[in-house]
Amino acid sequence: MDDIRSRVEKVMSQAPFIADLGVEVVEVGADWLVTELRLVPRLRQQHGYAHAGVVTTLADHTAGAAASTQIGAKQSVLTADFTVHLLRAAAGDLLRCRGEVVKSGRRLIVAQADVWDGDRHCARYLGSMAVVDQAL
Amino acid sequence: MDDIRSRVEKVMSQAPFIADLGVEVVEVGADWLVTELRLVPRLRQQHGYAHAGVVTTLADHTAGAAASTQIGAKQSVLTADFTVHLLRAAAGDLLRCRGEVVKSGRRLIVAQADVWDGDRHCARYLGSMAVVDQAL
Amino acid sequence: MDDIRSRVEKVMSQAPFIADLGVEVVEVGADWLVTELRLVPRLRQQHGYAHAGVVTTLADHTAGAAASTQIGAKQSVLTADFTVHLLRAAAGDLLRCRGEVVKSGRRLIVAQADVWDGDRHCARYLGSMAVVDQAL
Amino acid sequence: MDDIRSRVEKVMSQAPFIADLGVEVVEVGADWLVTELRLVPRLRQQHGYAHAGVVTTLADHTAGAAASTQIGAKQSVLTADFTVHLLRAAAGDLLRCRGEVVKSGRRLIVAQADVWDGDRHCARYLGSMAVVDQAL
Repeated sequence: MDDIRSRVEKVMSQAPFIADLGVEVVEVGADWLVTELRLVPRLRQQHGYAHAGVVTTLADHTAGAAASTQIGAKQSVLTADFTVHLLRAAAGDLLRCRGEVVKSGRRLIVAQADVWDGDRHCARYLGSMAVVDQAL
Repeated sequence: MDDIRSRVEKVMSQAPFIADLGVEVVEVGADWLVTELRLVPRLRQQHGYAHAGVVTTLADHTAGAAASTQIGAKQSVLTADFTVHLLRAAAGDLLRCRGEVVKSGRRLIVAQADVWDGDRHCARYLGSMAVVDQAL
Repeated sequence: MDDIRSRVEKVMSQAPFIADLGVEVVEVGADWLVTELRLVPRLRQQHGYAHAGVVTTLADHTAGAAASTQIGAKQSVLTADFTVHLLRAAAGDLLRCRGEVVKSGRRLIVAQADVWDGDRHCARYLGSMAVVDQAL
Repeated sequence: MDDIRSRVEKVMSQAPFIADLGVEVVEVGADWLVTELRLVPRLRQQHGYAHAGVVTTLADHTAGAAASTQIGAKQSVLTADFTVHLLRAAAGDLLRCRGEVVKSGRRLIVAQADVWDGDRHCARYLGSMAVVDQAL
């Protein structure tokens, strides 16, 4: 578990855009994790809600970190494709995201992420991650 | 055409997150537009490529602006769901995006967006936008 | 609950293509249902597995029936768009599918469906259904 | 070109479900093909339109055949995931589908397919195909 936690924290800390947005790791499990993002004004769209791009970035990176629990030390994951369904507008101050592995394969990992604004389920993400033989 | 251009420019200028990233409108047509985004270091992921969330935000907002060419003055569009296929990593300095309407409906508009890094086709986005009776 | 069950059974019985494939309703809940489909030889692809189109048809129609638990007597649902991730090839004789509502809206309902071949999770479907004012 | 044509025709002829529906190859190019499907009554849904599962099966198999133009003789392609946007209901007698390669990779091929009912654009499909080292 310590290996998994340190790998996930590496995935979450080494991407400049994720640091720029301010995503933080809250909890890590064997094939899942929970992250949070504070919705400062610059992350919103024209009606004051979290921008779809912010919700998606949080979901994609959290799902990718969940997928990274399934690979070897000299591998990394790159998103191949994904779908996001935006279920409710997020008007609150804090987004919470849970990413988890749906199916772990040798070359493709399918991962899901759900984004919450308090008890409001805001988005469901479903993506395919390619496993590449390149260390992070 | 002047109405369409001013509507599209409004959509592109009033979202704080889009201004924060630095997306700019290059050209506007009857049901399409072209945008650009300079890839400063904070918009990259751990391998130095444009972050999937940045590529997606550019595609989603440009597709949404394309959809906004189809609606009335007292309406706006909100993304309901979308898919992104990441075709190639974007290592360059400038992303260019073309958004266009695929199908215009009274309540749902399907729009596509393609993202390019020079002559490299980096991503294809396909999304459904809900038409809502709320002015921007 | 009797109303919901009879509505779901109507959705599952009135589509000629669903009858042709042989989909059957196993169990119905307030916002979910379980269906089954026997994999006769004509429903397979070139390697002997269930064809992706068969898996998708089962998932889409079951998700649509789940969505139909949320609407009025003079309405019906039509799939607007969906994504399917094929997780494992289905080589067995019987597919089982569970469809459920993820988010119920006035104009759009998001529904999910999972397809199983015994204890093998074969596919996850996520779709948006448009609510239309037309009785079945 | 003869090799490509014979490979595509093999992909289209060897799947029992595709033969059962009655899909036919109309034209084949270097990285695209056109297919047709006659909409007999058993392929329809409850309102008389082509069932979403039929439209999807046609699109998926045609896209897969387009992807098969990009691989070696001892390989085949399997759909990993896809998205379908249903743009208009198909009420006519004949569906026509054009499948084409969007991006050809060593391990993943992205392909698109569009389905038409006469001059009505009914559906757009976008999918990721995994290249597997297994002859058809």
